[in-house]
Amino acid sequence: MQRRWELASVPPQHAGTSSHTSATLQRNAAGYQTLAEYDAAGNIYTTTESLTSSSSRRIPAQGNGRRMQNLRAELLTAWSAVIDEGVESGTYTLGKAVQQFERMVEEAWTTPDTDPMHAVMVNSGTTALYGALVACGIKPGDYVIVPAMTFVSTALACSWVGATPIFVDSTPGTWTLSIDAVKYLLTERADLRSQITAIIPVHLYGAVMPEMAALIDLAQAEGWKVIEDASQAHGATLTVGSERYFAGTMSDAGCFSMSGVKNAGVAEDGGCILTRSPEMAAFLRMWRDLGRKPGDRYGFHVPGVRGRMGTFAAACGTVQFQHLNKWNQQRRAIATRYTAVINEAGLSLITQVNPDESEPSYYKYVIVAGSQAEREQIEDCLAEASIETEHYYPCMLPDQPIYRSGQLPCVVAGDLAVARHLAACGTCLPIYPELNWHEQERVIEAVKQAFARHLHAGVAVAAGV
Amino acid sequence: MQRRWELASVPPQHAGTSSHTSATLQRNAAGYQTLAEYDAAGNIYTTTESLTSSSSRRIPAQGNGRRMQNLRAELLTAWSAVIDEGVESGTYTLGKAVQQFERMVEEAWTTPDTDPMHAVMVNSGTTALYGALVACGIKPGDYVIVPAMTFVSTALACSWVGATPIFVDSTPGTWTLSIDAVKYLLTERADLRSQITAIIPVHLYGAVMPEMAALIDLAQAEGWKVIEDASQAHGATLTVGSERYFAGTMSDAGCFSMSGVKNAGVAEDGGCILTRSPEMAAFLRMWRDLGRKPGDRYGFHVPGVRGRMGTFAAACGTVQFQHLNKWNQQRRAIATRYTAVINEAGLSLITQVNPDESEPSYYKYVIVAGSQAEREQIEDCLAEASIETEHYYPCMLPDQPIYRSGQLPCVVAGDLAVARHLAACGTCLPIYPELNWHEQERVIEAVKQAFARHLHAGVAVAAGV
Repeated sequence: MQRRWELASVPPQHAGTSSHTSATLQRNAAGYQTLAEYDAAGNIYTTTESLTSSSSRRIPAQGNGRRMQNLRAELLTAWSAVIDEGVESGTYTLGKAVQQFERMVEEAWTTPDTDPMHAVMVNSGTTALYGALVACGIKPGDYVIVPAMTFVSTALACSWVGATPIFVDSTPGTWTLSIDAVKYLLTERADLRSQITAIIPVHLYGAVMPEMAALIDLAQAEGWKVIEDASQAHGATLTVGSERYFAGTMSDAGCFSMSGVKNAGVAEDGGCILTRSPEMAAFLRMWRDLGRKPGDRYGFHVPGVRGRMGTFAAACGTVQFQHLNKWNQQRRAIATRYTAVINEAGLSLITQVNPDESEPSYYKYVIVAGSQAEREQIEDCLAEASIETEHYYPCMLPDQPIYRSGQLPCVVAGDLAVARHLAACGTCLPIYPELNWHEQERVIEAVKQAFARHLHAGVAVAAGV
Repeated sequence: MQRRWELASVPPQHAGTSSHTSATLQRNAAGYQTLAEYDAAGNIYTTTESLTSSSSRRIPAQGNGRRMQNLRAELLTAWSAVIDEGVESGTYTLGKAVQQFERMVEEAWTTPDTDPMHAVMVNSGTTALYGALVACGIKPGDYVIVPAMTFVSTALACSWVGATPIFVDSTPGTWTLSIDAVKYLLTERADLRSQITAIIPVHLYGAVMPEMAALIDLAQAEGWKVIEDASQAHGATLTVGSERYFAGTMSDAGCFSMSGVKNAGVAEDGGCILTRSPEMAAFLRMWRDLGRKPGDRYGFHVPGVRGRMGTFAAACGTVQFQHLNKWNQQRRAIATRYTAVINEAGLSLITQVNPDESEPSYYKYVIVAGSQAEREQIEDCLAEASIETEHYYPCMLPDQPIYRSGQLPCVVAGDLAVARHLAACGTCLPIYPELNWHEQERVIEAVKQAFARHLHAGVAVAAGV
């Protein structure tokens, strides 16, 4: 895992975007004045409000506020259409937009020459994970392997079904769940082996776990279900052999957060479960709706949850999802630029390794400093330049109060050195399609400034992360 | 319980609405042409689309489609304001509209001279019940008393915390949970007595359970928590001694569905927990947000759920909630009219008994026929006149597949004769503020028609319901 500074793959038309941009003032459908920026190839790069005083304007860590503003007219039109739909039916639950969103996702992410995907929209990514575990038959007393470095929901969903999460470390470089750590666990904790029933790889920061094929082989040998947590990896792909798979389509069930902070989402909480099993999809359509059988409004046939996606939420999802590919290209272009600058300047920072067969969605762009103090120095420089940063995640899961205190049981496998280092030293640079060229420049300059002031360029970074 | 034909209480200004209405064509802010109808007192009675061919237009069972259409301009404005708010913060979760909605509910439903209420908005009424049970310390192995005649969520929430629901019958006449049935249970199943930890009265169809004071006395004597399911009773009141209490404010926690089909809601799924305990409110604010402590974005301190209300949802709630009192008056006027007609015509139908001290919100107006066959004859006549009816609920909970099949454990107390009869013979007449005078007339005529054709007026109805 020494390909530390490798460039992320980037589509050819974006390779030269650093050479030229042009800006044009526009008026969108809602009458809001925006400034559209185009790169040399003529692709719209970003549309935000006026760039006046852009040199000091705050750069938020997340871009979904700007995204929603840009989509305002489309969204209000879509929501108004949902209102119309309900006038006749008298209800807004599980309306047309939900089905439409499900069909869009199924069509976008079904790999040719494989069985079609079924998408079931739910009210959060957490609900998606919970539903996938229930549908896979994970039950109280079971153990489920999850990475220590992920959002709390990956583990909480296991706790909700009464299973115990086993936290394993990440692979150095790619930062996704380590198969070596899993194998170590099976040796060290042979007593648990027969009670492990599932494993949840997380496609962290938008990069598909590269060893998915090996993981699935291992899981099949052990009799485990595999559930992908693809919340951060909308539209990310992994090529295995001759087949290119989308995140969330390689296992028993793929779970997505569709929340508004994700690469494409529903403004607020939302989620989606993808499966090739029509039976699982049929079960989950009942489960999300309190166990209600389609066509039997007041008949509750399986123990379910109030977990359906709302129709207004789904309408937002359909508006955003059609932009996803373009937005992912824009994220990739920014990631490429950041990585190139870090490499060219020889800054002693670690970034995520992405093998050639992987095309990430760049939900987050994380840089890892050599120490927590160094991270703070970088963040201070960014804050001085009015640039927000975030920690994804500042605390690995076994250190969270709910697990550390014993309120919820868990098992920790090994010393979790990689996860611990990421939590202590990683920080996110802003990355979203609405981040304009000048703002990217400001981010880059602030990072360089931190090195000019405090840190050494070109120094080898602690190995193993 | 012989006050079968008693008039529902009705505010004086609506007592004479049957004498006169006038209609005026209007154009609302969104440009949609509506017909506003005014009663003799000058109150807007309903605004819907043109009444052309109103004699045959379908009358939906639920009015929230019409409601949303009438509010379209207000809603789109409110949602646009939420978009603006997120541009700066970059997030739409737990935004200003959520807090605003909580303050509105707290102010509206706090009884003078009592401790202030705390409102915690969540993503469904089911989540509200679940959260209240968790906050009240109800745990696996406990038993919780619930009425057999209620929506499935009342019992499912108990199952979710690992408790077992005990289904008891309703009181004849008022149809709410029977204290006599509870006392019978304590005698017959003395073995369970020590394991019962809570009781959930449901304010069915919008009528507060009249015996709340006696219920609370019993619960205190037994050491039970009392959780009100006030999902159907937004703004309904019960006067106890000199104090007038709103539904949901008389117990340890009041739970509301705020879904779009309720008297005022958020278009889709939503809920609210009301409590006088600041500690419980603080806990629930963490619990609904995955256990996150305010101010500690990535610190999860209690085992929580993804149950927060969305800001766009809450914005709809604030728009609707300010109309609630007016809408409830309109519902009461319709209920009064229906009841008067049924009484005057001497139709052999049973309607809900509402004692003088109770002011219901009339979420539903249920008529109970003498038999299932008679109910069908009435519904057929309504359907012929393009009037939709609904069953609230066609199947009492212990007969639901999830409980009947043993998938979820439950206990049944007694023969549940009243609940069984309501399920078999009850049907809902359309009742909502947007139901115009002519439509009410059509409903009444269709019911009368059923009696003219098939049934006998003035015949005594099976006693005890």
